[in-house]
Amino acid sequence: MKALRYEDGRLRVGEVAEPHADGEAVVRVTLSGICNTDLEIARGYAGFQGTIGHEFVGVVESAPAAPDLVGRRVVGEINAGCGRCELCRAGDPRHCPGRTVLGIVGRDGAHAERLRLPAVNLTPVPDEIEDERAVFTEPLAAACGITERAKIGEGARVAVIGDGKLGLLCAQALRATTAARAVVLIGKHRGKLDIARRRGVETFLLDQLSDAKPPAFDVVVEASGAPSGFDLALSLVRPRGTLVLKSTFHGETRFDSARVVVQEISVVGSRCGRFRPALELLRARAVDVESLVSETHPLSDGLRAMERAAVPGVLKVLLRP
Amino acid sequence: MKALRYEDGRLRVGEVAEPHADGEAVVRVTLSGICNTDLEIARGYAGFQGTIGHEFVGVVESAPAAPDLVGRRVVGEINAGCGRCELCRAGDPRHCPGRTVLGIVGRDGAHAERLRLPAVNLTPVPDEIEDERAVFTEPLAAACGITERAKIGEGARVAVIGDGKLGLLCAQALRATTAARAVVLIGKHRGKLDIARRRGVETFLLDQLSDAKPPAFDVVVEASGAPSGFDLALSLVRPRGTLVLKSTFHGETRFDSARVVVQEISVVGSRCGRFRPALELLRARAVDVESLVSETHPLSDGLRAMERAAVPGVLKVLLRP
Repeated sequence: MKALRYEDGRLRVGEVAEPHADGEAVVRVTLSGICNTDLEIARGYAGFQGTIGHEFVGVVESAPAAPDLVGRRVVGEINAGCGRCELCRAGDPRHCPGRTVLGIVGRDGAHAERLRLPAVNLTPVPDEIEDERAVFTEPLAAACGITERAKIGEGARVAVIGDGKLGLLCAQALRATTAARAVVLIGKHRGKLDIARRRGVETFLLDQLSDAKPPAFDVVVEASGAPSGFDLALSLVRPRGTLVLKSTFHGETRFDSARVVVQEISVVGSRCGRFRPALELLRARAVDVESLVSETHPLSDGLRAMERAAVPGVLKVLLRP
Repeated sequence: MKALRYEDGRLRVGEVAEPHADGEAVVRVTLSGICNTDLEIARGYAGFQGTIGHEFVGVVESAPAAPDLVGRRVVGEINAGCGRCELCRAGDPRHCPGRTVLGIVGRDGAHAERLRLPAVNLTPVPDEIEDERAVFTEPLAAACGITERAKIGEGARVAVIGDGKLGLLCAQALRATTAARAVVLIGKHRGKLDIARRRGVETFLLDQLSDAKPPAFDVVVEASGAPSGFDLALSLVRPRGTLVLKSTFHGETRFDSARVVVQEISVVGSRCGRFRPALELLRARAVDVESLVSETHPLSDGLRAMERAAVPGVLKVLLRP
């Protein structure tokens, strides 16, 4: 089968063996999405070798442990735990120390004709969510995961920095799932900001910010992936407020630790979220993901698709096997 | 009166006017303690000019707003709020945006014969706590403040990095006030570590650590004030654990932001704490502060005392006006 692989410092689309199920479910991928993490991997930053990709929707072809799933359209939790540790037994493999992660750690990924995952990782997709929206389940779940890490109470003021696909999902998810008084998205592109604005998010162009002097925010989400975004976030958060780090860019971040101590700020990392709340948002059309799709390419053009995904201004690039 | 002042880039002990009370209480200082923050200020890092010092015990000479306090031996909360904002009205001036801070921000400090503070900032000291222990109330309160910022549940494993005076107070306070399964202090000096060990804290020499391979900690407190301490802390904290930043050293801290995101770690700043729990620990002799006193100098030898406080291995240096 065809797969988009990163191996020996090189990205290529090639023929590889069908996944050897080994008791897990096999899913025929119908659509996959390119994440910035894929770009990081293809730059060699993450130490991963194999088929990349972790955002997908597909149809179950076989599932020895859950035969009911065969033929169902599914999305999949990307962390596959050991199943035995305390975390896995509590139903949360996201931090299992022995986990593999689809297309990221020790497990071939989703930019392929087929993938394998434990059946327990798969969630059926309601019929009313078409593939082009269902493929956003994983990144939208990650956006929803912010509220697992930062308390956003009624009347809170929240800012999201970065109007890329991650920032747009975070801002919309927070607007739809919290009782925040204001959710503000800060970015550089009027057109992108407008996607969130149409869903009730206040927006600021970065240039306007110094004039606007917004009051300090209770929670600031750094989703720009740039070190300058961290500095901006720190300047916007109130004393004892929370700064959520959402981008997994590699390299060092520098910060003024005295500021964090004196103002007693919390800097919290946030990675994956639960799929069910994300599917619920998609089902209810509470979040606009359609407008985030910039391009769809056949999997055979995976290299070109990866190049396009790295172009500033391009949002989500999808691959169709 | 005599005071230890930092002005125009220079530290000196000089004669200054008695504090002009202006409705506040005036305290005759009987003992003050040199904090690393004083050393930072004397290096010009904090932008403060005036009398330094914020750890003290003394006797109230006048207090128009609270005449009952006159003649009482007191310690003092160092943040003096505006009294009108929401935070101040809720009884917590520690993050009042208009606050002054004793010997740190806009208010002459404690290394002097007399100081002024709002009467509401003063807390009488129980008779059984002699001056040499009462002078530790402020830094011990700061150590107790960790539990305001990091949840330390029953059975938690906690590590404190740094066997200086701050680390020794943090480790002892956490041992005495939480139900943690283990409180571990990591440092470079057997003699200092022993102070905490005698109070039920497990101790590790930094050198032993790589051999010992301790399991990941739920909470790690960075109290060494060195950037290497931050890296060590990050390597010791478990996924979704909490790293508490306690040192207010100036300059940039660098960290691997991908690690914080992927492992969903919380990095929280912690500065000041409440005085009453600290006084209770001192009254009950639950924390050994006596062993932390390295030297006591007359205020007139303030320059020499500051030099001594900066010498590696020297713990608390006290000044007697």
